[in-house]
Amino acid sequence: MSEEQPLILVTNDDGITAPGIAATVEVMKKLGKVVVVAPDSPQSGMGHAITINKPLRLDKNHQFGPDVDSYQCSGTPADCVKLAVDKVLHRKPDLLVSGANHGSNSSINVIYSGTMSAAVEGAIEGITAIGFSLLDFSWDADFEASKVFMHKVASNVLKHGLTNGTLLNVNIPKGDLSEIKGIKICRQARAKWVEEFDQRQDPYGRNYFWLTGKFNNLDKGEDTDEWALANNFVSVVPVQFDLTAHHAIGTLNTWDL
Amino acid sequence: MSEEQPLILVTNDDGITAPGIAATVEVMKKLGKVVVVAPDSPQSGMGHAITINKPLRLDKNHQFGPDVDSYQCSGTPADCVKLAVDKVLHRKPDLLVSGANHGSNSSINVIYSGTMSAAVEGAIEGITAIGFSLLDFSWDADFEASKVFMHKVASNVLKHGLTNGTLLNVNIPKGDLSEIKGIKICRQARAKWVEEFDQRQDPYGRNYFWLTGKFNNLDKGEDTDEWALANNFVSVVPVQFDLTAHHAIGTLNTWDL
Repeated sequence: MSEEQPLILVTNDDGITAPGIAATVEVMKKLGKVVVVAPDSPQSGMGHAITINKPLRLDKNHQFGPDVDSYQCSGTPADCVKLAVDKVLHRKPDLLVSGANHGSNSSINVIYSGTMSAAVEGAIEGITAIGFSLLDFSWDADFEASKVFMHKVASNVLKHGLTNGTLLNVNIPKGDLSEIKGIKICRQARAKWVEEFDQRQDPYGRNYFWLTGKFNNLDKGEDTDEWALANNFVSVVPVQFDLTAHHAIGTLNTWDL
Repeated sequence: MSEEQPLILVTNDDGITAPGIAATVEVMKKLGKVVVVAPDSPQSGMGHAITINKPLRLDKNHQFGPDVDSYQCSGTPADCVKLAVDKVLHRKPDLLVSGANHGSNSSINVIYSGTMSAAVEGAIEGITAIGFSLLDFSWDADFEASKVFMHKVASNVLKHGLTNGTLLNVNIPKGDLSEIKGIKICRQARAKWVEEFDQRQDPYGRNYFWLTGKFNNLDKGEDTDEWALANNFVSVVPVQFDLTAHHAIGTLNTWDL
């Protein structure tokens, strides 16, 4: 890296007005030159959606004061990263930080998470990337302890870099700094959501369904993100976008195909 | 498996009226009892999006004749799977088939694909799952050869099952059966899209952007899905939803965190 300060792209999925992204910008300003390109409205649960059936808007935003270039985009978190690199930065940033999300993206939630999809999109494009999430869905969640851990993880990532083809999924327990015991490197717990659709009837007699569910951690391992978070540690999971189940290839090659 | 015929759930992301899902239903009827729960409109590029900010509709559909139970859903492919299991089937099907998609879902496209997100959602819920895609984006794509390979792969999957925590991503070259050389078990090629946003101005002078891009295969390996498809083989990639980059954990544990 040159002597210049690192260029840090910040995005999220809760939208550019969320307190979580403000906390992230505040921290990242201490580590480099910050540019924000974030959704103009909440995009939670968008997974790795991209927008191909309608055009995207990208407008200047003044949310973060005069020393932060900031843009709001009508698309998904993954769209934001694509637009940022191609139309705003005109080069790869040195670091992409997504979040901090209001709510957990631990274990299987990485699959559904717009926050993590932005970080994954960055990693696919060869950008060093981190997604941060706080285990508090509330809009007025307290990000004070998160700021400390975001600084610690991001400065380590800027110093060491990341293994090629990987990014980090960082989840932070709710609570004061004094309650959090430290940071654990973890694997993604084997967990799933058990759906419980809330079925209702509209005033015209037609059924509709709200998606709700219960989180079910099936994984007793003490090396998982769920274990770390339940024990008041920050969890750091290295994530990859090669989804190949390499261990299954041998078995499939015994089939009569 | 019992003596009864297997219960096969079919979904897709191009929507319930797409010719690709009709081809899939035709094949799967030979292998078991078919139930369709598919989006009521095209959902391409939806990644693993789920619908949490608005309610879902689920309506009986008569697309596939009297011997196929069929429903159209206002949600994403992942929503369809969740609703199908919880509200239509009331049990896990023996097989989930998503597609056949109109267009490739090879290599990195697995991340953006609604077709594959439905299959991944099934696998997370413990359902044996396959996503099929034909390398032809056209609405009137020819699925004749695809039917042969869908039958071959699905009957093998019903016979052998799949390694726990994995599903299959199957891509089929365009062309007649005689032109396709066979089936290869592959890994996901390292590839990415290079964005080229098409910038335009609306009648009111404001800019907007269409997402376009060029596919860039960076991977020279001859064991990849891109290699197989370029050489007229059907590619079968085992996919997992544990995104942990296990090989990176050791390095991260050397950091001062």
